[in-house]
This record gives sequence, structure tokens and C-alpha cells, in this order.
Amino acid sequence: MQGKSGSLGRSERRREKAFGVALQAIRREHGLSQEQLGFDAGFHRTYVSFLERGLKSPSLSTIMDLAETLGIQASELVRRTECILAQEQT
Amino acid sequence: MQGKSGSLGRSERRREKAFGVALQAIRREHGLSQEQLGFDAGFHRTYVSFLERGLKSPSLSTIMDLAETLGIQASELVRRTECILAQEQT
Repeated sequence: MQGKSGSLGRSERRREKAFGVALQAIRREHGLSQEQLGFDAGFHRTYVSFLERGLKSPSLSTIMDLAETLGIQASELVRRTECILAQEQT
Repeated sequence: MQGKSGSLGRSERRREKAFGVALQAIRREHGLSQEQLGFDAGFHRTYVSFLERGLKSPSLSTIMDLAETLGIQASELVRRTECILAQEQT
């Protein structure tokens, strides 16, 4: 069962792109490669790459796994995403 | 392509249950029924019910849609989820 039908909407893509930008920025702040982040969080490197390019929609659990590996709260990762979305609208 | 293979892990279920508890609490604080929240956020009522029971994994975009409808930040909804997870561990 899906909550919403159809393909990814425009706002969904925008959110995923913003999440990707936030994830990449925090990963680089921590001096980690995509490989290292992926390995430590239990994901394939290509999945991290897809997320950073906004091509995949992260689940709550994925967000928490990534945040844990980066040593931050998941809510902080989402807050950074919100900041990027807010900047876009100004 | 999946980031992780296999069925939902134990920690994933725990996170979804915590998210469901947080979502239900905030929905009730706002005096909304599952039907109203679902309708306003663009989801079916049964999907809201599944989320509140921790039976579905919300995506980032779903979390943002729900938060927007509830008039809070998505990061706040995730923060409430983290509080519930932290309480469990004490």
C-alpha cells in the first residue's frame, strides 16, 4: 500500500535534493568519503551517492542510520534540510 | 536499488513505532482525527493509521507533508521521535 499514488512530485524532488545537499555538506564537514559513510552506516556507496544527488527518497530509518554514523541527531539532519529549503524560497 | 537488503530490522521497527507514537501524540494535541490529518496531508486514513502503529516506514517527504499539515517543522516531529526512543532506553 502506498500513501500517495503516482510518481515523485515536484516538491518531493525538491526535498530530496535539499536533503542530498545537507547530507553531503555534513559528510564533508566530518571529513568522510561516500565510501566511508556508506560502509559505516551499512549502505552501499552508490546509495549514498544517489541520496546526495536527490535521486532517492530516504526513509526515517535511513536518515537515523546516516545521522548516527555522522554523530549528529536525525532531527539536526532534517533541520539542515529545512534550512536549505527555506534559503531556496528567499 | 535498495540501500539495505532484507526485511525490516529490529531497530527499524523500533524507530517506526516511536515515530507512530510521536505522530499520534502531536495529531491529538492538534485535535485532529486520522481522517482529517490524512485528508489535509493528501494521504488515506488507513495510511495514517499504519504509520501511527509503526507498520509503515515514512519517507522524508511523508514526514514533511505530515509536519506541514500539523503546523510544525519536520525536524520537530523527528525530535519528538528521538525523545521517545531515548525514553525507551532509560
